[in-house]
Amino acid sequence: MTPKVSQEHKEQRRAKLIQAATEVFIEHGYENMTMKHVMEKASVSRGGLYQYFENKEDLFEAVIQSQQTEALDLSIQTMIESQGTYWDALLMTFLGKEKTPNDRMDPLAPSKLEYFITGRNDKRRLEHARERYHSAIKLTTKLIEDGERVGEFTPRFEKQVIAKSIISWIDGTALSHSVLGPDETDLKKQSTLLIEYLEWVLGVKR
Amino acid sequence: MTPKVSQEHKEQRRAKLIQAATEVFIEHGYENMTMKHVMEKASVSRGGLYQYFENKEDLFEAVIQSQQTEALDLSIQTMIESQGTYWDALLMTFLGKEKTPNDRMDPLAPSKLEYFITGRNDKRRLEHARERYHSAIKLTTKLIEDGERVGEFTPRFEKQVIAKSIISWIDGTALSHSVLGPDETDLKKQSTLLIEYLEWVLGVKR
Repeated sequence: MTPKVSQEHKEQRRAKLIQAATEVFIEHGYENMTMKHVMEKASVSRGGLYQYFENKEDLFEAVIQSQQTEALDLSIQTMIESQGTYWDALLMTFLGKEKTPNDRMDPLAPSKLEYFITGRNDKRRLEHARERYHSAIKLTTKLIEDGERVGEFTPRFEKQVIAKSIISWIDGTALSHSVLGPDETDLKKQSTLLIEYLEWVLGVKR
Repeated sequence: MTPKVSQEHKEQRRAKLIQAATEVFIEHGYENMTMKHVMEKASVSRGGLYQYFENKEDLFEAVIQSQQTEALDLSIQTMIESQGTYWDALLMTFLGKEKTPNDRMDPLAPSKLEYFITGRNDKRRLEHARERYHSAIKLTTKLIEDGERVGEFTPRFEKQVIAKSIISWIDGTALSHSVLGPDETDLKKQSTLLIEYLEWVLGVKR
């Protein structure tokens, strides 16, 4: 008879494995990371890991999911309540709570880029990529629309395309940051310029 | 005794192999492409291929090199002579000779993204990535500087950072185009917006 493991205990173990996997993906990237690395980092047996995740792909999706859940828990309403304006809420979506340009980049960015670019012909990964893209565009477009409605913004271009341009800009800096690092990318200055671009293209009233 | 092969003949064979490899990389991407694909496409033996290229990496660098040589043969002086203005020369660098927004993307973009992102810890690929990035930034910054000197531009931000923002924007669209395709990326509209952004940030006099 297998011992009874409470649901709560299971969730704790799962969260612990996700935490260990996150560290391992950051350290090794997606392609070079193995399930063995996670077993060592989390000090669990092969069985203890595979009981929760079938393979590396499963594990990585759980890692991304756990990051996203934190972000999406913030509804637009909550963001506006904490930030005061749509402009500040928008800045928060890509600069974090301080809303100031910095040299920081999501440490999982290199793994995510590998995962999606090498997996572009894999049905499951493609579906996942599409969902992520759509939800980012949807949130950003909604912030711009709502900001326009309350008179904060007077956009100079189609709102959804402005949202896509923000994603492109950020993905492009993530790419050169992953390969060449923060200095050559000039991440902080590019973020400053991105903000100035947005003030212009959204016609932000200050 | 091996038969004498003229230098000219060798160069022709090499060019033919590069052409075949280009088609194969476009078809399969970098990771999934094999030397066998190239042997089949070019109808050459294993020996006939390895005589020219040691491995897939060699071959891919030759493919990229052949693309770049065409582009860099156009000196700034030549570009200005054919285009008339620095603004048009700048547009040509990323939109091609027609200088109009379109839905086309370099068909090798997905392979390049794979190559550089999965190879970011490989010394040779990293060096190659750095060179490509620097030469693109250098050319773009020079066009902006020269355009400012003749009074075409009044840039609103540090010129090199503007150049980097163009590369980020284009790399980001290449990424979503590679994974999700032209429609979801809205490539043509994003290009239109990129042009409007550049008119603004460079303070283009028309």
